Amino acid sequence: MSKSVFIGELTWKEYEAKVAEGNCVAMLPVGALEQHGHHMCMNVDVLLPTAVCQRVAERIGALVLPGIQYGYKSQQKSGGGNHFPGTTSLDGATLTHTVQDIIRELARHGVRRLVMMNGHYENSMFIVEGIDLALRELRYAGVDDFKVVALSYWDFVRDPQVIGRLYPDGFLGWDIEHGGVFETSLMLALYPQLVDLDKVVDHPPATFPPYDVFPVIPERTPAPGTLSSAKTASREKGELILSVCVSGISAAVREAFDLAT
Amino acid sequence: MSKSVFIGELTWKEYEAKVAEGNCVAMLPVGALEQHGHHMCMNVDVLLPTAVCQRVAERIGALVLPGIQYGYKSQQKSGGGNHFPGTTSLDGATLTHTVQDIIRELARHGVRRLVMMNGHYENSMFIVEGIDLALRELRYAGVDDFKVVALSYWDFVRDPQVIGRLYPDGFLGWDIEHGGVFETSLMLALYPQLVDLDKVVDHPPATFPPYDVFPVIPERTPAPGTLSSAKTASREKGELILSVCVSGISAAVREAFDLAT
Amino acid sequence: MSKSVFIGELTWKEYEAKVAEGNCVAMLPVGALEQHGHHMCMNVDVLLPTAVCQRVAERIGALVLPGIQYGYKSQQKSGGGNHFPGTTSLDGATLTHTVQDIIRELARHGVRRLVMMNGHYENSMFIVEGIDLALRELRYAGVDDFKVVALSYWDFVRDPQVIGRLYPDGFLGWDIEHGGVFETSLMLALYPQLVDLDKVVDHPPATFPPYDVFPVIPERTPAPGTLSSAKTASREKGELILSVCVSGISAAVREAFDLAT
Amino acid sequence: MSKSVFIGELTWKEYEAKVAEGNCVAMLPVGALEQHGHHMCMNVDVLLPTAVCQRVAERIGALVLPGIQYGYKSQQKSGGGNHFPGTTSLDGATLTHTVQDIIRELARHGVRRLVMMNGHYENSMFIVEGIDLALRELRYAGVDDFKVVALSYWDFVRDPQVIGRLYPDGFLGWDIEHGGVFETSLMLALYPQLVDLDKVVDHPPATFPPYDVFPVIPERTPAPGTLSSAKTASREKGELILSVCVSGISAAVREAFDLAT
Amino acid sequence: MSKSVFIGELTWKEYEAKVAEGNCVAMLPVGALEQHGHHMCMNVDVLLPTAVCQRVAERIGALVLPGIQYGYKSQQKSGGGNHFPGTTSLDGATLTHTVQDIIRELARHGVRRLVMMNGHYENSMFIVEGIDLALRELRYAGVDDFKVVALSYWDFVRDPQVIGRLYPDGFLGWDIEHGGVFETSLMLALYPQLVDLDKVVDHPPATFPPYDVFPVIPERTPAPGTLSSAKTASREKGELILSVCVSGISAAVREAFDLAT
Amino acid sequence: MSKSVFIGELTWKEYEAKVAEGNCVAMLPVGALEQHGHHMCMNVDVLLPTAVCQRVAERIGALVLPGIQYGYKSQQKSGGGNHFPGTTSLDGATLTHTVQDIIRELARHGVRRLVMMNGHYENSMFIVEGIDLALRELRYAGVDDFKVVALSYWDFVRDPQVIGRLYPDGFLGWDIEHGGVFETSLMLALYPQLVDLDKVVDHPPATFPPYDVFPVIPERTPAPGTLSSAKTASREKGELILSVCVSGISAAVREAFDLAT
Repeated sequence: MSKSVFIGELTWKEYEAKVAEGNCVAMLPVGALEQHGHHMCMNVDVLLPTAVCQRVAERIGALVLPGIQYGYKSQQKSGGGNHFPGTTSLDGATLTHTVQDIIRELARHGVRRLVMMNGHYENSMFIVEGIDLALRELRYAGVDDFKVVALSYWDFVRDPQVIGRLYPDGFLGWDIEHGGVFETSLMLALYPQLVDLDKVVDHPPATFPPYDVFPVIPERTPAPGTLSSAKTASREKGELILSVCVSGISAAVREAFDLAT
Repeated sequence: MSKSVFIGELTWKEYEAKVAEGNCVAMLPVGALEQHGHHMCMNVDVLLPTAVCQRVAERIGALVLPGIQYGYKSQQKSGGGNHFPGTTSLDGATLTHTVQDIIRELARHGVRRLVMMNGHYENSMFIVEGIDLALRELRYAGVDDFKVVALSYWDFVRDPQVIGRLYPDGFLGWDIEHGGVFETSLMLALYPQLVDLDKVVDHPPATFPPYDVFPVIPERTPAPGTLSSAKTASREKGELILSVCVSGISAAVREAFDLAT
Repeated sequence: MSKSVFIGELTWKEYEAKVAEGNCVAMLPVGALEQHGHHMCMNVDVLLPTAVCQRVAERIGALVLPGIQYGYKSQQKSGGGNHFPGTTSLDGATLTHTVQDIIRELARHGVRRLVMMNGHYENSMFIVEGIDLALRELRYAGVDDFKVVALSYWDFVRDPQVIGRLYPDGFLGWDIEHGGVFETSLMLALYPQLVDLDKVVDHPPATFPPYDVFPVIPERTPAPGTLSSAKTASREKGELILSVCVSGISAAVREAFDLAT
Repeated sequence: MSKSVFIGELTWKEYEAKVAEGNCVAMLPVGALEQHGHHMCMNVDVLLPTAVCQRVAERIGALVLPGIQYGYKSQQKSGGGNHFPGTTSLDGATLTHTVQDIIRELARHGVRRLVMMNGHYENSMFIVEGIDLALRELRYAGVDDFKVVALSYWDFVRDPQVIGRLYPDGFLGWDIEHGGVFETSLMLALYPQLVDLDKVVDHPPATFPPYDVFPVIPERTPAPGTLSSAKTASREKGELILSVCVSGISAAVREAFDLAT
Repeated sequence: MSKSVFIGELTWKEYEAKVAEGNCVAMLPVGALEQHGHHMCMNVDVLLPTAVCQRVAERIGALVLPGIQYGYKSQQKSGGGNHFPGTTSLDGATLTHTVQDIIRELARHGVRRLVMMNGHYENSMFIVEGIDLALRELRYAGVDDFKVVALSYWDFVRDPQVIGRLYPDGFLGWDIEHGGVFETSLMLALYPQLVDLDKVVDHPPATFPPYDVFPVIPERTPAPGTLSSAKTASREKGELILSVCVSGISAAVREAFDLAT
Repeated sequence: MSKSVFIGELTWKEYEAKVAEGNCVAMLPVGALEQHGHHMCMNVDVLLPTAVCQRVAERIGALVLPGIQYGYKSQQKSGGGNHFPGTTSLDGATLTHTVQDIIRELARHGVRRLVMMNGHYENSMFIVEGIDLALRELRYAGVDDFKVVALSYWDFVRDPQVIGRLYPDGFLGWDIEHGGVFETSLMLALYPQLVDLDKVVDHPPATFPPYDVFPVIPERTPAPGTLSSAKTASREKGELILSVCVSGISAAVREAFDLAT
């Protein structure tokens, strides 16, 4: 029981002991419930950062908090738009206050190091605001040594060689990777039972004008909801991504928090 | 893939089809990250209502939303108090707005029937407020047929005979069942690997004066954090509870939503 | 003039002097404007806790703040539901912030001991949240010795002998005591002119399924709005309740705040 | 019992019947808990508008809601400042939302005419905002015939002859009437037991520069907290004011709501 | 470049140096976008306090922040009402939080002296609330020497002789000066190109009953939106007003902040 | 006077007439007060989108609202970080509600087409949230034809040839363009008096790890606050950018709103 990296699977005494050791790093996956095309389940943005958290935590001795299951509203150019059935999103303030509340509680426990592991592009700024409000409040409480690392796991795939292996025909940018090769490959590596490659719709990459229109014009999103085709996704690509993310993030967290390697 | 009752494990097309059938019932487990004594993990209040939801959903053809992982602040007389390490709680408004946001989105999808399955005593009134604010807002949007059933699963264990089998020496009330026979038995039936009966501290039931003091006086909570001893918990009791809850709640939901049996 | 226990009836100099003595206990009645059946006025939940406050304050030398006149939304199983004309309720956040604001101001005055005297069941958790937010904020202001006792006055009627005298035919639980024997008897003892026993509707106790439905199903509440019959209410019972509450609460407050008896 | 103009003293059936008659006018006193000098109690701003409401209601057949007991923060030039012990004020948003919530509920009851009777200068703009937010929300609910009259009762004393009788030596403006001749006279007419004329401090009228400084400079407020001397207050003046206010407001409400006289 | 009094026109190094000198006074104009009759543009309430700020800042060595461009909702008796096209107003809380946020940031920069220069009557109380919330929060951060002077520039025109020159036929009060002689004269002195005197509608001063009605009754406002006629406005009067305001406010700010003259 | 494209410089009658013509497009610049290096003033993010708005408005017959002067908190990787003196930022909710309030008011005026012209990278998501909340609320009010185009003006510089002329040595991405060639060139073309090229610090482009740390590590930002050197900025480049933006955005707005060209 006490071997789990998931805080939810520990007793409070085990958690207390872990925090008392000092240097305890908590990791918080932040996801979404969002359509990911015809071929993939809707909790991808929770499953993936949770899986990355788990592997990083095992490697560096960190703990993983229960993930935030709902995220900010899907935007057309990054997630297809918030008009799809199934996509279930929070107002920005709700997400921000969830982050703020969790940080306040972690500080009470004695934790001083947190990794926010974002799995849904649109969450970023509301996470940032939650962190800012929380750290401001903690300063009022006399706590000024709480440190947060905020990241989106895909940002660690930067090596041109890796990108070349993932996208032999050229990389078109993270923005249209919603439900595409990247996420689908990771799901194939981690949760193949939640992917049905036969249902991938092979459409050209979505293109958008350099502005957004509200209310969204649904026709601008490719009908299946994905922004690029997952046709060339594979388990091997997913394993590569996972390995790159886990090692990159592990190193980054160690560096950011001055942890021994 | 499409057989799952968990919305997160469906594609949006599968979900859309299910909603289009009409009469779709969505179920939302609302839990907490909270200490549950020396012998049990901290995500009990998420795991249990989720498990009940899953079984009810299978029986009545409903769908289960990703659970709310963090709940309202633990109170001394019902959860030991919010001063324990590990217990990680939200402000009331954060929980309320999470509920409100999810209901607003479900209504957009076309859903009109929701079961709020509470697993953490202290959540109740903030869930109620979230429902009220959401239904009020939906009326402004012209939606007046959205219906919510709100329940705490333990309230369905009312049969004196069942209670007699669970507590042969007498039942002392739900309020002190935090981390006691009830929850521990359910966990033994569902997640035995997350319980360590050897670590149960066998203390007399907690007693409290008829008032609350803030800030909490930690000494008033039994040291392990449980409010009654789980010593007589058993897998069999857990299976009995589960069976009673699942059948009772299934019947109640069918009745409340006029579903065919 | 200076003899009053009501803060509103003191000059600020009298109040200042009282606070300067040290150990000053402030008491805040929190009520509601809510239907209480055909036979009773709608401000019962303000009048009763205020009357209890007054008597306790006289006994222990405390002061009574102006009561909060509006409370949280009436729930069907405890107050009949919020659909009745006359019932006039606040959103949860409004009640919570009212409590928070008052505590912040009391702290500025130098008060460090507060009794929240609740007279309306549905208020409890929003009062708790107001206290929590206020004490958290006070800690940021460097005030960490503000202490609050929160109670609902009826919780002090626990002696089985007393309950036997009030309910010779058996007690069915506080939850259905809305507008019933308990409140009506107290009103007969305190404000007989606001009760018309002839208008009591003698209906069987309300029974509810173990779940709530929103929007409320009005037919589930007995037509007069009461949850049990007040037929056997009497002035004598009211005096008994009052005496039990006043002495019990006085003792509790003394104990909680380490006051000399 | 049913003769009372106070809604809190009616049963819900009596209130329902009154509203069903049509043209029902509800009146809401909005006050404060605020220092009013050495010679007067602190709930003056609740007592006075409530008394005016009662008399107007009796005259025009209106109903009076329970008063809002706490108001916005006392400002130096109109109330002496919020630094006095005893003065217990709400944040602006708390007052605004209280007003908004009450209006929303009145609309649900079927009421369409409300008089906001302000008794505390600093409340005005937060009442206005509460009304605006409520009417906006009601429009979303399809209610567009809810009408509010907002007033401060002292604004009805405009007749130069009356002012001449109240202030034979010249009137210096409402702004410094805090705890002065006006309010003290009214209290002498209505609640003489809550005034102690012997304790009036006879100081020259407060004078202020044409700007405000925050944090407040306490020395700028006359030491007793009043902004002008109440030395020439009298019961007769109070009766005159009351009579002028009651008749003026009664006429105004009738006019504003097209009521028969 | 560095000679500007406008913070927005400085580099951060220039600003930093100015603050480091000590005694730095920041000035924040708070305006509105609001109709000002047929003869004047709608940003009068921003232009005028900004112009006054600029001149005062030049005289006393202060700096001027970018003005708040939108203000609180226009009220009928002071601005004609919020029903006019063009008038674009904020909710009270939005204005309050804008003020609070700016003060929090100034304090972080090391500024400790701020002048709030209001140009729109209806803003006052929401500015006051923003200041109060900000100073309260700063105290939690350990900053207790931040001082704010809040003023409306017209309050500095108090000299009866000056008023006599502006209103030779008698002054009717600031409340009806919306779009009248005062503002129009100032605009003629400062931005004559934004005034078209030919379009002034010469109507009698607006008169209102001593109460407000919501929703507003548009007919009660003179049709052009002004509350008194600007017919006798002139550039000379504007220069007089400007001179009186600038010298009065300069002296007041020096006095309030103990600045050398 | 009526020739201005700035709404603030129109009378309400002129504005009313313009809106009555139909198809009126309002444009709202959203900026910030933020450090822009040693060589540039701090209101760049207001001046630039306002200038673009003005030119687009002139071309397509639109109107320009007063700009929002304060923006969301500067982030290290896009604006250097919010720790610089002078940078004066709003909480996310404040910016969001400002946008929501303005849209609500425009809708009341009869406007149905709005362009949000963002000039500060960090604002984007809080603008999006403001738009979403406003359109949601407008739907409750029965307005479902309000359309918003949201854009950041730099996104219209996409032509590789143009980018080649701006960055002959290679383009490193918009993210590090804070205070660099792009903004500086535009300022040279528009407000040369607010730029001092001699003070440009010629540093290598900022590089950051693929994660953020909070609180910010100031040393990671180049000391002058810029993220890339403006050394090669020129008036000519600024004119090119301006021309590309104005024509691109004009075309986009016409297209999005189906305006005749």
